[in-house]
Amino acid sequence: MPGEFDLIDRIRARAGARDDVVLGIGDDAALLVPPAGRQLVITADTLNAGVHFPDGTAAADVGWKALAVNLSDLAAMGAQPAWCTLSLSLPEADPRWLDAFLDGFLALAQRCGVALVGGDTTRGPLSVGVTALGHVAAGAALRRDGARDGDGIWVSGSLGDAAAALSLLVGGDTATVGKADAGGLRERLDRPEPRLALGAALGGVASACIDLSDGLLADLGHVCRASGVGARVDVDRLPLSDALRRAAPDPARRRVLQASGGDDFELCFTAAAGRRDAVLQAAAAAGTAVACIGEIVAGSGVQAHAGGLPWTPPRAGYEHFDS
Amino acid sequence: MPGEFDLIDRIRARAGARDDVVLGIGDDAALLVPPAGRQLVITADTLNAGVHFPDGTAAADVGWKALAVNLSDLAAMGAQPAWCTLSLSLPEADPRWLDAFLDGFLALAQRCGVALVGGDTTRGPLSVGVTALGHVAAGAALRRDGARDGDGIWVSGSLGDAAAALSLLVGGDTATVGKADAGGLRERLDRPEPRLALGAALGGVASACIDLSDGLLADLGHVCRASGVGARVDVDRLPLSDALRRAAPDPARRRVLQASGGDDFELCFTAAAGRRDAVLQAAAAAGTAVACIGEIVAGSGVQAHAGGLPWTPPRAGYEHFDS
Repeated sequence: MPGEFDLIDRIRARAGARDDVVLGIGDDAALLVPPAGRQLVITADTLNAGVHFPDGTAAADVGWKALAVNLSDLAAMGAQPAWCTLSLSLPEADPRWLDAFLDGFLALAQRCGVALVGGDTTRGPLSVGVTALGHVAAGAALRRDGARDGDGIWVSGSLGDAAAALSLLVGGDTATVGKADAGGLRERLDRPEPRLALGAALGGVASACIDLSDGLLADLGHVCRASGVGARVDVDRLPLSDALRRAAPDPARRRVLQASGGDDFELCFTAAAGRRDAVLQAAAAAGTAVACIGEIVAGSGVQAHAGGLPWTPPRAGYEHFDS
Repeated sequence: MPGEFDLIDRIRARAGARDDVVLGIGDDAALLVPPAGRQLVITADTLNAGVHFPDGTAAADVGWKALAVNLSDLAAMGAQPAWCTLSLSLPEADPRWLDAFLDGFLALAQRCGVALVGGDTTRGPLSVGVTALGHVAAGAALRRDGARDGDGIWVSGSLGDAAAALSLLVGGDTATVGKADAGGLRERLDRPEPRLALGAALGGVASACIDLSDGLLADLGHVCRASGVGARVDVDRLPLSDALRRAAPDPARRRVLQASGGDDFELCFTAAAGRRDAVLQAAAAAGTAVACIGEIVAGSGVQAHAGGLPWTPPRAGYEHFDS
């Protein structure tokens, strides 16, 4: 069985390069040259097997998703990604699994111009910890605390696909989600697309932004609390993929998946009503669809409506320690 | 049982502050202002229960050690520490355990001027992932690849205490390590001291540096491979604590603990023979004892001697995937 240093050599050989990496994997720490005059943006998220991805997920998909959820956080700040570290805990040192994992991880890293500069491998239950770093012009970061009464609420892409795929996998939920149509949905669960171009284009346009990991209503609640405002969302306006429309024909069930399902990794952002055209221009420049789904109101809390009536989801989002 | 966001609130309330942290815990990512003209130094190390610390280790000690092993990597680069992220995987959301963990983690963070700026909490087997960031003057970092034929080899502090404590705990090794004297040794295992002041003082003095996590001979081997040189170490010159002398009276057993035992988190560095006085001045300025234990030679590999004769340790160090 290969040892820890053989695994690290395998990773090092494929880690990619950037001109601003003075020293990458292989010393006690990496040396980086931060771009002058910009602020650093840093986020850390860990994926555990059976919690953040279903047991049996393909190694390449685990790799992709572990980096994607972190780049999604950078996207939600409007940051340009640059570097990452990887802490990989593996039950056994399987070089084929590692190579496949790196296929997914590094495919996304290369596409986004991110260099892998450090980390470690340990023996333990499968767990993938990533820290991602990027940078943003001083004062230009998108934060959660800038939403104001009257702002429009927007989301990118479409919502609910990942939750539908998970529902099928874990719950065997074939009553409301047709199994034959699960293919396109599973891709959304396993290979989320960090909305980096959109986040960057929304600098100076959006008043607040968050990425959707725990479910729209829960994550929008974070924006409301940070900004000291409330929100009104029309659930019927949540953007819907053709795959989800076919797979979940029951509108009541679909609403739950879209409003409360996690793992979409779309951006939810707010913008002053007068910036509607600027939002649409930013979305067009980024090549990412956006939809206005409601508005920020005075007060607190997120109120959802469907069919013109107040609507309450059966669960408010996903917390890892819910009992 | 408290949820994930309650845990994050507990961490956020105690995370500490620095003037260069524009935005800390609580948004999608943290915003930092890197010091102008300096290089960033970044390292990531994860500790898993039962692998990197014994099951049953006090929560405060787990917290201290998780940060210490990362700051030790920054010390080995000669960096000034600044920020860190924390990814905490917990089997259950126990606020008392978390508070005690933070007592240890933040005591060391505060002492070293490090702000905790982000991370996440997840449910899973106990695992602590830390990414630590610091900075160093351009070109001043201590690397592994600068050792040259004729350089002296030095270590800080004393070696073998942590391995002796682990040997007692895990192996019940009371034949060669007396149980009555284990108290002072256990402190060395649970609360390693990152040698930040020494690392910083060695800038421009040491030719290469590494921190000792896997054992002296194994880690010195990394320096030799990176530098394209060999090393000759006199095991009888390895600095010895009074606690280890009392606890392990058998010199043969003691040599193994000192030369091959892991978890010392001392610095091992090299310096040109003519820089001996500069090394001693740096050590005095840092308030850290250092000892010269051998010299770099042409060739490759680490040769150990004891009692004037070649000496081979029974094992060459610790790899997490050794079969």
